[in-house]
Amino acid sequence: MSGRARVFIACSLDGFIAGPGDDLSWLPPPPVDADGKPVSDFGYAAFMAEVGALLMGRNTYEVVAGFGGEWPYGAKPVLVATTRPLAPVSPTVRAVTGDAATLLAAAREAAGDRDVYVDGGVLIRQLLAAGLIDEMIVSIIPIVLGAGAPLFAGLPERCALECLRAEHLPGGLVQVTYRPVSRA
Amino acid sequence: MSGRARVFIACSLDGFIAGPGDDLSWLPPPPVDADGKPVSDFGYAAFMAEVGALLMGRNTYEVVAGFGGEWPYGAKPVLVATTRPLAPVSPTVRAVTGDAATLLAAAREAAGDRDVYVDGGVLIRQLLAAGLIDEMIVSIIPIVLGAGAPLFAGLPERCALECLRAEHLPGGLVQVTYRPVSRA
Repeated sequence: MSGRARVFIACSLDGFIAGPGDDLSWLPPPPVDADGKPVSDFGYAAFMAEVGALLMGRNTYEVVAGFGGEWPYGAKPVLVATTRPLAPVSPTVRAVTGDAATLLAAAREAAGDRDVYVDGGVLIRQLLAAGLIDEMIVSIIPIVLGAGAPLFAGLPERCALECLRAEHLPGGLVQVTYRPVSRA
Repeated sequence: MSGRARVFIACSLDGFIAGPGDDLSWLPPPPVDADGKPVSDFGYAAFMAEVGALLMGRNTYEVVAGFGGEWPYGAKPVLVATTRPLAPVSPTVRAVTGDAATLLAAAREAAGDRDVYVDGGVLIRQLLAAGLIDEMIVSIIPIVLGAGAPLFAGLPERCALECLRAEHLPGGLVQVTYRPVSRA
């Protein structure tokens, strides 16, 4: 069985994944205890353990690549959906082109029997509109930004969701897991 | 002590309170059990029991007035923020004009020692930007609309929030209670 197409993303209460100019400074650091030890990674490590490959939008890739330092996705294949030339920051990165189904098929092949982590607002909307997203774990950060890059706004058609789980996490995050109803 | 300025509102996961053309058809009906009896009102009656008066934006008022049937707010004073002439559908309705603080002061006076229910996207943003909102109960409906009237997007400045509570309600709603941090 091929892996699921899953989203794991944070957004503001008003649905932005970045402020104007790709600003991510409002994302909270992982909460720590009195000794400075992390008390939660918001489920990221458990999610990533099930991920075989990433399918990422071009803008998201540029933002992550721009962080510098250690490449955060280790040996996992990272497919970047783009039609422009790409200079990969890691040998695990490659460009892919095509419609939503083609992109996801390439990522599924790279993921083997594990999941595909779909990342980036434009790409998530593209796959969601095509009925190709299996699950979305959305962490709502307790802030209103007012403007920025939207996660879902701009989707060409409505998409009903089933809410599988909602959790109040440390730091005031509300993490909600949804399954698009058309995929149920 | 004067009452709190509180918000009780539903929005889509992408932060819209209405679809294009004031469409509210996507709002779910209250969930019922096998005998058709309501199993939840999403906390609305308990919220309303603490409300002494409503302060409402002009567009929201027009939408509610357009429903016809019984006026939903009984004997509670309803102050409509508008600069245009108003033909009230109920003797409890009157127009108010002024900046955010003036509007809220009028509503507080009408509310006595109970809370003011602030309703409508434009008005909520106006009071939030002025630091005048005490609490917001936001019910996130499990749907992506893609477009419509935003609840928070368009706020001129960022607003950090404290998350007081998050609940997974029947029908897949996630109801989150926030306090603007500047008011804490």
